[in-house]
Amino acid sequence: MNTFREDGAAALEWVASYLEGVREHPVLAHVEPGEIRAALPASPPDEPEPFVAVLRDLDAVLLPGLTHWQSPRFFAYFATTGAEPGVLAELLIAGLNQVGILWRTSPALQELEEVTLDWLRQLLGLPDGFQGHIEDTASTGVLSALAVARALRPDRRVVLHSEHAHSAADKAAKLLELELRKVPVDAEFRLRPELLELDDACAVIATIGTTGAAAIDPVPAIADACETAGVWLHVDAAYAGPAAICPELRSHFAGWERADSIGVNPHKWLGVPMDCSALWTRRPEDFRRTFSLVPEFLQSADDALNFSEISIPLGRRFRALKLWAVLRCLGRTGLQEQIREHVRLAALFEEWVRSEPGWEVVAPRHFSLVCFRREGSDEENERLLERVNASGEVFLSHARLGDRYALRLAVGNFRTAEDDVRLAWEVLNREAAML
Amino acid sequence: MNTFREDGAAALEWVASYLEGVREHPVLAHVEPGEIRAALPASPPDEPEPFVAVLRDLDAVLLPGLTHWQSPRFFAYFATTGAEPGVLAELLIAGLNQVGILWRTSPALQELEEVTLDWLRQLLGLPDGFQGHIEDTASTGVLSALAVARALRPDRRVVLHSEHAHSAADKAAKLLELELRKVPVDAEFRLRPELLELDDACAVIATIGTTGAAAIDPVPAIADACETAGVWLHVDAAYAGPAAICPELRSHFAGWERADSIGVNPHKWLGVPMDCSALWTRRPEDFRRTFSLVPEFLQSADDALNFSEISIPLGRRFRALKLWAVLRCLGRTGLQEQIREHVRLAALFEEWVRSEPGWEVVAPRHFSLVCFRREGSDEENERLLERVNASGEVFLSHARLGDRYALRLAVGNFRTAEDDVRLAWEVLNREAAML
Repeated sequence: MNTFREDGAAALEWVASYLEGVREHPVLAHVEPGEIRAALPASPPDEPEPFVAVLRDLDAVLLPGLTHWQSPRFFAYFATTGAEPGVLAELLIAGLNQVGILWRTSPALQELEEVTLDWLRQLLGLPDGFQGHIEDTASTGVLSALAVARALRPDRRVVLHSEHAHSAADKAAKLLELELRKVPVDAEFRLRPELLELDDACAVIATIGTTGAAAIDPVPAIADACETAGVWLHVDAAYAGPAAICPELRSHFAGWERADSIGVNPHKWLGVPMDCSALWTRRPEDFRRTFSLVPEFLQSADDALNFSEISIPLGRRFRALKLWAVLRCLGRTGLQEQIREHVRLAALFEEWVRSEPGWEVVAPRHFSLVCFRREGSDEENERLLERVNASGEVFLSHARLGDRYALRLAVGNFRTAEDDVRLAWEVLNREAAML
Repeated sequence: MNTFREDGAAALEWVASYLEGVREHPVLAHVEPGEIRAALPASPPDEPEPFVAVLRDLDAVLLPGLTHWQSPRFFAYFATTGAEPGVLAELLIAGLNQVGILWRTSPALQELEEVTLDWLRQLLGLPDGFQGHIEDTASTGVLSALAVARALRPDRRVVLHSEHAHSAADKAAKLLELELRKVPVDAEFRLRPELLELDDACAVIATIGTTGAAAIDPVPAIADACETAGVWLHVDAAYAGPAAICPELRSHFAGWERADSIGVNPHKWLGVPMDCSALWTRRPEDFRRTFSLVPEFLQSADDALNFSEISIPLGRRFRALKLWAVLRCLGRTGLQEQIREHVRLAALFEEWVRSEPGWEVVAPRHFSLVCFRREGSDEENERLLERVNASGEVFLSHARLGDRYALRLAVGNFRTAEDDVRLAWEVLNREAAML
């Protein structure tokens, strides 16, 4: 264990230094495909190497190939954070190496997951009666929810969601051999509920915070339609969900308590390191009927719930420990502060865009995402984005909204300060001027 | 970052002390369902708490609810290890918080995963042409493989495997709406290939190291049948796969190089912390056709492979880093030493069982699992197992082999010494005498 203590101290210092200096790295990796692979030995070592050799090559070989998701200047997709308590919890998780299969293979894992998901439910203002568990990603979450919906209505093979909904549903539908129909959106990129045709449908996915524009589908009207037709409603709030912790933002979530299942990603806007995707359902028994298969070698006398009975993998990591650490070390007020600051920074950026001739905001901003563009063609905006990202100073992404190319600035890293957002604006203007 | 350094040192010391003392804990948690839940606050904290409060409650509240998978006296299911380099790599993984979606979101993640899976392929003696990637668990791996098989032969809806194969396939088949047929086994619990009826089949799963008895299906004969019928062959070597690193054990894997896909779990017998399940295929383009859906917001100019195109989740953790750390810090020789020692200990235990009147070995032992029983009824053996596990000194599991209840002792923890195995034998004899 002395080697472990020494190696551990070195690893810890590596992470501390990395996080201190992460702002200085080019945000988007500047390597060519195959470059990292070529720098690694083609064959494994025969003899043991010391752990310091791993740390050395992390710097020497891998670092140039990292895109720095921990950078406060990462504004692409939806920005994420591995907050410090979550990072350290991963060390504990690996040290304990729990494998959740049955309750008794780790009662603490099972019950802490129940409790922390219930804590988060309370923080989000969801009512009693929603039972939560953790999936790796929202892709698996939506796959699970659709599998349950299909099992309930095996004669109905259609799933509907907005044309702006996440591609995870496309993949899930393909796997489940369901037909996915994309419902047109209105001018604010919201699903048009009057266009829902539910006769053959087993499920509808409504999104609060779409990938492209963080649009908010009209959940109350969709819930009305689903209830009338007896169709499963899944609400995808993977990105925006944590905003419901702030009372002043909760109106955006009207109606989500009527969903049959809800997905929210603590690994996005809640500081939990990748991966940790929360899935709640009001119908846990339907999940159990869909997924439960307890083989002989796992049968035991206790009748406690096992999460392996309501999800795809048989074994699960002790992910609840990192969610627990983050919820405790930030607390409700700490999480609210983060989210409010991100919304403030996004509103500030939005204001700069609106005030500057030659720029426009192209979608309503509800949370911490701003969709905007520069005057000129789509191609010019695409070239602008390439130049901005090639600078390495910041990293933004894009979306196609209606028939227009839009730039996206997503605030969401806990280390992002106003200066970082200002830098993004300066780089955008500088590169636009040079086009 | 000073808080992070201090908290990190405390977390590191917690893990070091835990691993030093893990042998002393009752292996199987001795709590009642609901006991841990009741000891946790029902609501989340409003105000931030220090990280030391998390560590304190880890000791005070959660520890009694842990089943100690890291204990060298854990002999149940298949024993696992979170080896030290893998544990520390998890700290690095969380600190970096990479999210692998597209190549460019983390070129190092993508390419290190390609390289380490190729290293492991070489260690296992698999030929060129197998492309590997990491899934969370073998359950997801077999689901993916069967999805590809179904896509290739959509008119064929049957999957076959031995009646001793893992229940993961049952769950996957249910999700994919395939019919799973269980093929009877011979006296050594091996699938009987002459009973394979492949007319309606899209896939066969052959297992090298079944869950119950670590039996070895006759892969060459199964591969012959699959090739003739044009049926996908998946080889499940989740537990036993790492044994192929030892040349003297490689004959057990004859024919697996003819599989279309192969699953091996580095989080079982290879020292990598949960979760890390390797999946190789000779037909990566079929995986890509089945799973690839690149939405607009992710389209980019480079044409590098993205693992999100060949698996279910869109985003993935930097799991390759822990596999890399373990392969380097143990090396081929270090891994061989571990596996050989486990096989030696299992052989020793088997010898003790054979030599002692009143006990019998009930399945051939190929790797590090011994299946055995005490004279008397199934119920008496079941009661014996309950008493042994209730002692907390060791943890064993059971299987039903044919129509008999069998006890299972699985060696597989890197910290297990001969004294630990001897203790298991002493506890078994002591409790048997007291029945």
